[in-house]
Formats: sequence, structure tokens, C-alpha cells
Amino acid sequence: MASFELLVEVRRREGIADPEGATVQRALPALGFDTVGRVRMGRAIRVEVEAPDEAAARAVGVSLANRLLANPVMEDSEILACRALPGAADAAPGAGEPR
Amino acid sequence: MASFELLVEVRRREGIADPEGATVQRALPALGFDTVGRVRMGRAIRVEVEAPDEAAARAVGVSLANRLLANPVMEDSEILACRALPGAADAAPGAGEPR
Repeated sequence: MASFELLVEVRRREGIADPEGATVQRALPALGFDTVGRVRMGRAIRVEVEAPDEAAARAVGVSLANRLLANPVMEDSEILACRALPGAADAAPGAGEPR
Repeated sequence: MASFELLVEVRRREGIADPEGATVQRALPALGFDTVGRVRMGRAIRVEVEAPDEAAARAVGVSLANRLLANPVMEDSEILACRALPGAADAAPGAGEPR
């Protein structure tokens, strides 16, 4: 078993209103960002998974995203990246993390 | 000028408490995800930028992230991806987006 870090993006489906993104977008011209158009806010979730290989880690990520992280009525999810954590077999997940 | 879509990740700095991630992490074993360790929640922001090339679009994204999207006291930001939008020169940013 190796450790992998998955990066999962959860974003609103096309057509679902995004008030937070719209607010940022409206603020931009006054701040000098006149070349910036549409802004969409979503969530980026980094998850550490123990798995035999990358494919298995990604499968856990997809299941996790669909069952726990995204609201499938209004959100899509996507695994953006999956990287092996170096030497992570020695450390328990979450070790060294301040609470 | 071409249109680019930037994907910006904003995440808490190491050492900054992440109650939302900790809550998800605690919920996992009861849902059958016993191979999942640390969970960190951040934001994924997709921004459309008009720029002459990708380097210029990324520079706008970095400035935007530092000035508007991230709180530099407790958050880091990173440009995860930058892609050219096909045929976007014809469409105004945000065109066709439901409000």
C-alpha cells in the first residue's frame, strides 16, 4: 500500500447560479482587472488515500466525491490530480498536522 | 487577444486549522472510507481572462489571486491550469451564461 494525494474539484453545474463568483466578477473592474470575464467559484479538496496503485486511489476519490463531497443535484466533481506521496508509508495519515 | 480559462486553487497554509476538512475526515470511517487520511478543503476558482498569450493570462491570475481571491495571512494560492478557450474571441466573456 502506498499513499496518494488526490486533488478533487467540486464545481456547480452549468446553469446553476453562482452568487459568490458573480460578486467577485462585479468587483473586478473597480480593482483594475478589466480583462477578466466570467468567474466561477468551486471547492478544491485535497485527500490522502492509502491504495495499492494510482488507479485504486482515483477510484476511491471518485466514490468519495460522489457520495460525500459533491451535491450531485447541482454539482459536478472531477479528480484533477493524483500524486504518490514520498515516504508516506512510514507516516500515519494526518501525522504532524496541527489541529 | 485570446481568451484563457485559469484554474486557481486557494488553500489554507500548513498549520492553519481546517475545521471543514476535519469534519469530512471524521465522517469517513462510518461511510466505509477507511483508507482515507487527511482531508483539506480549499477553493477552486475558474476565471476567464483576455490576454495576448498564456504567460500574460497567468500573470493576471497570480495578481488576481493575491489581491482578491486569497487571504494572504492564512491562505496560499496556485494557478493549477491555464487553457485557451476555443473560438472565444467571438464571444464576450460570460456570454451565454445563465444568471
